[in-house]
Amino acid sequence: MASQALIKDFEDLIGKENVFTSDADLQSYSFDSAVLEPVIPALVLRPTTTEQLGLCVKKLYDNGIPMTVRGAGTNLSGGTIPDHSDTAVVLTTGLNRILEINSNDLYAVVEPGVITADFAAAVAKKNLFYPPDPGSQAVSTIGGNIAENAGGLRGLKYGVTKDYLMGVEFFDATGETVKTGSRTVKCVTGYNLAGMLIQSEGTLGIISQAILKLVPPPKASKALMAVFDDMQNAAEAVAGIIAAHVLPCTLEFLDNNTIVRVDDFTKAGLPRDAAAILLIEVDGHPAQVADDAEAVERVLKENKAVAVHVPKDAAEKFKLWEARRMALPVLARCRPTTVLEDATVPRSQIPAMMKAVNEIAAKYKVEVGTFGHAGDGNLHPTFLCDKRDAEEFKRVEAAIDEMFDTAIKLQGTLSGEHGIGTAKSKWMEKETSRGTILFSQRLRRALDPKGLLNSTKLVGI
Amino acid sequence: MASQALIKDFEDLIGKENVFTSDADLQSYSFDSAVLEPVIPALVLRPTTTEQLGLCVKKLYDNGIPMTVRGAGTNLSGGTIPDHSDTAVVLTTGLNRILEINSNDLYAVVEPGVITADFAAAVAKKNLFYPPDPGSQAVSTIGGNIAENAGGLRGLKYGVTKDYLMGVEFFDATGETVKTGSRTVKCVTGYNLAGMLIQSEGTLGIISQAILKLVPPPKASKALMAVFDDMQNAAEAVAGIIAAHVLPCTLEFLDNNTIVRVDDFTKAGLPRDAAAILLIEVDGHPAQVADDAEAVERVLKENKAVAVHVPKDAAEKFKLWEARRMALPVLARCRPTTVLEDATVPRSQIPAMMKAVNEIAAKYKVEVGTFGHAGDGNLHPTFLCDKRDAEEFKRVEAAIDEMFDTAIKLQGTLSGEHGIGTAKSKWMEKETSRGTILFSQRLRRALDPKGLLNSTKLVGI
Repeated sequence: MASQALIKDFEDLIGKENVFTSDADLQSYSFDSAVLEPVIPALVLRPTTTEQLGLCVKKLYDNGIPMTVRGAGTNLSGGTIPDHSDTAVVLTTGLNRILEINSNDLYAVVEPGVITADFAAAVAKKNLFYPPDPGSQAVSTIGGNIAENAGGLRGLKYGVTKDYLMGVEFFDATGETVKTGSRTVKCVTGYNLAGMLIQSEGTLGIISQAILKLVPPPKASKALMAVFDDMQNAAEAVAGIIAAHVLPCTLEFLDNNTIVRVDDFTKAGLPRDAAAILLIEVDGHPAQVADDAEAVERVLKENKAVAVHVPKDAAEKFKLWEARRMALPVLARCRPTTVLEDATVPRSQIPAMMKAVNEIAAKYKVEVGTFGHAGDGNLHPTFLCDKRDAEEFKRVEAAIDEMFDTAIKLQGTLSGEHGIGTAKSKWMEKETSRGTILFSQRLRRALDPKGLLNSTKLVGI
Repeated sequence: MASQALIKDFEDLIGKENVFTSDADLQSYSFDSAVLEPVIPALVLRPTTTEQLGLCVKKLYDNGIPMTVRGAGTNLSGGTIPDHSDTAVVLTTGLNRILEINSNDLYAVVEPGVITADFAAAVAKKNLFYPPDPGSQAVSTIGGNIAENAGGLRGLKYGVTKDYLMGVEFFDATGETVKTGSRTVKCVTGYNLAGMLIQSEGTLGIISQAILKLVPPPKASKALMAVFDDMQNAAEAVAGIIAAHVLPCTLEFLDNNTIVRVDDFTKAGLPRDAAAILLIEVDGHPAQVADDAEAVERVLKENKAVAVHVPKDAAEKFKLWEARRMALPVLARCRPTTVLEDATVPRSQIPAMMKAVNEIAAKYKVEVGTFGHAGDGNLHPTFLCDKRDAEEFKRVEAAIDEMFDTAIKLQGTLSGEHGIGTAKSKWMEKETSRGTILFSQRLRRALDPKGLLNSTKLVGI
C-alpha cells in the first residue's frame, strides 16, 4: 500500500489535483467494460507531461508498486482492471496533445491520452484520414488503442491500429525511455518494438508518444443496406463479396434479435422482419465506387437478398450506421449482464460460424444477439443474461467455451480486437502452444523483472 | 566445434546429403552481400522438413552451438555472416513449399525457404497480388524477407514485408514451437510475436512457417519516366507528388552517375545527359490511374521536368524498370568495393538529403552513385571505392558517418530496409537511446539465454 509519504511525493511531482485517493475516486477506477469483478486500487495518478509520466513510473518501480495504465477504460477483457489492492492506476488522460500532423509526409505524432475521434477529426480537418474506428472511438484513447490493437468497422479494407503505428516512445518498467520506429515509411533500425508494444495490454512498457500513419482520404463512397430473410444467405453474401475481390470499407452484420431490439430503441426504421441485414460501404475513386457497388449488388442478389436499399442522403446513412453503433448499448440494456465476445474466423467461414453460434445458443438455451464486422470475420455474439443467476451464467460460460472451440476449429482466433486481459487467458494455450505461453512469460519477465506492469493480464507472469 | 559424433547425429537426422562440412562448402557460407570480413562456420545444415528444423535447433541448443539462419544470403548488413568459427549455418532452402494460397480469404501459408519471386508468381497465377518486391526478389527467401523486414520498389503505396505478415510459427532458441497470429484479418490473441520476429535478424527465433496477406491485384497501371536537368528539381517533384495526395506504386530515382553507368552496360537508351530521372508507376482502377497520372504529370512540369516520357508498350516499360534494377549490379562492377547504404528520411526531406549526400561526397572526395526508392524517402547512396586503399576507405567511412548524422537530423533513420546486422550497430544508440539498447538486450537475453542465435547482430547480447 502506498504510504502517506509516498502520496505526498506524488503530489509534489504531479500536483495535488492529479493524485486521487478518495474512496469514490478509487471505486471509479476499479472496473472497466468487461464482465469481471472490480478491484479497488490504492491510488490513481494523472501525470500531465511526458517527464512526469516517466518520473511516476520510476518512483512506482523503485517502490515496488504495481501499475495498471488506463486511458478511457473501455476495455472489454479486463485489461484496465487493477491487478491488486496495492496497484496504482496511471491515467493517460492528462497527456492529450496532438503534437504534429504532417500533411507532406502523411504522419502524426500524438500523446497517448488523445481521444481517437478527436484525433480523427483533427486529421480530417487537414484533408487526411486516420482509418481505425473502434466502437468506443468517441471516448477511447490512442494509447489504449495501441495497447489493445483496436480494430473497428473499417478493418476489412484499412486494417487495424497495428497498421498505422509507425513508431512509439515508451517508458520501460524502470522508467527508462525507449524509442522505436520512425517518421519514415521504411525503418528497420533495431527490433520492431512498436510491433511488440501493440496489443501488449500495458504489460511491456508505458507509451508516452506515438507516430501514426495517415492516408489520403477516399474521394467518394456509397452505402447500401441489404435485407435477408435467411441468415445463412447473408453470411454467404459476405463470403461472396470478398471472393469477388471487392474490399468494402465497411461490411457489417446484424441478426434479427439485434435488429428488433435496436429498432425498438432507436426508431431507425430497420426492417424488423429481416433475419439479418448487411450494412455495406464501398469507397475510393468515384469510378471504382460505382464498379464496386455494382459488383456488391450483384453478389447480394445472387445470395437472395430480398431488398437492397441505398440511403437517399447522408442523414439517412448516418441513421443506419448509428443504429449499428447502438447495437451493443441497446443489447446491454436488455438484461442485467452483457457478455460481448469477439471470436473471429477467416471470412469464408462466416456462414459456418454463424450457424454454429445459433446452434450453440439453442443447445445451451441462452439468448444471443449477433452483430459485428462480418467482412473481416470478426463477429460479436453478445450473450444476454444475469450473472447473479448462477445456473444461467454457467450455461453462458459453457456456450462461450464451445464457441471458442468452434472458432479455433474453423482456423479462427479467440479474439479479433477485444484482447485477452484476464477474461480469455485460460483459452490462450488451446489456440497457440505451451511453448508460446512459456516464451511470452520469459519475454515479459525479462522486461518487467519485478512483475509490476499489469501482471495478471495476458499470459500472467 | 562440432564433434564427429555430433556431425554423425545430424547426418542421421537430416540425411548425409544435407550436412556440409567440406572447406569449399564452409567457404561458401562465410559471407553475404555486405562489405564485411567473412567468418568460416563449423558446419552447414539443410533440414528439409519442419520437424527436422526443430530437431536441429534443439540439438544445436543442447550442445551449445551458435546458429546463424540463412536463406539466400543476400543480406546487406552482415546478418547472415556466421558469428564465430564454431557456428552452424542453418539453411532454410530445403523448406520451400507453398502450403496454401487461399483466394477466398486472401492469405497464403508458406515455408521460410520459398523464393520471393516464385511466391509472387504463384500468387499472380491465382489472380492475387503479393506486393513486397525487394531488389533481390529473384533469389531472396520469404524467411529472409521476414527476418529483415524487406522493402522494395512498392513500399510507398503497398508497404513492406511487415504489412503482409499475418502470423508466424517459429522455433525458439531451445527448439520449442511458438505460434502467433492467425489466418484472420484481426487477431489480438496474445503478444504480437509476429511483429516482434519481423526484422529481428534471426536473433529471437527460427521461422518455420508464415501466413502472408494477399490483396486483389490492381486493374490497371501506367508508367512514366521524367527527365530533369537539375537534381534538386527531381527531388522537389518527389515531395510534390506525395503532397498532392497521389501514392504511386513506384517512385524511383536515379542520379546522373547511375544513369550513365547503367546505360553503358544495358544500352537501355536512358537520357545520359539528365541530372536525374524519376521512374513512376501509378496503379489501381483505370479511372484512378488516369487521374493520378495526370496529377503526376502536372507536378513534374511544375518542378521543371525537361521531358516526361510514357513507355509505348510493356516491353519498353520492362526495359526501363530493368535498368533501375540493374543499378546496383552495374555500380558494383565499377570499382572493387561497393558500399550500398539505405539511410532514409521523411519524404519531404528528400531534397535536403540529396543535397547533403552530394555535398558530403564532394567534401570527402569519394565517388557516389545515388538511386533508390525516392517515394518513400529510402535512397541508396552507393559508395564506389577500393577497400584495400586504407586512406580512401577511411574517407568513405567518414562520409557515411556524416550521412547518417544528416539522416537523423532530418528525422530519418539509419536503415530503411537493409537491416542493422553488424554493419550499423555502432550507430543504433545515436538514433534511439541507451535505454533502447539495454531494453533490446534484456529482451534477447531472456529469449536466448545461451546467446546462440546470431549473437553478434543488432544490439549484441
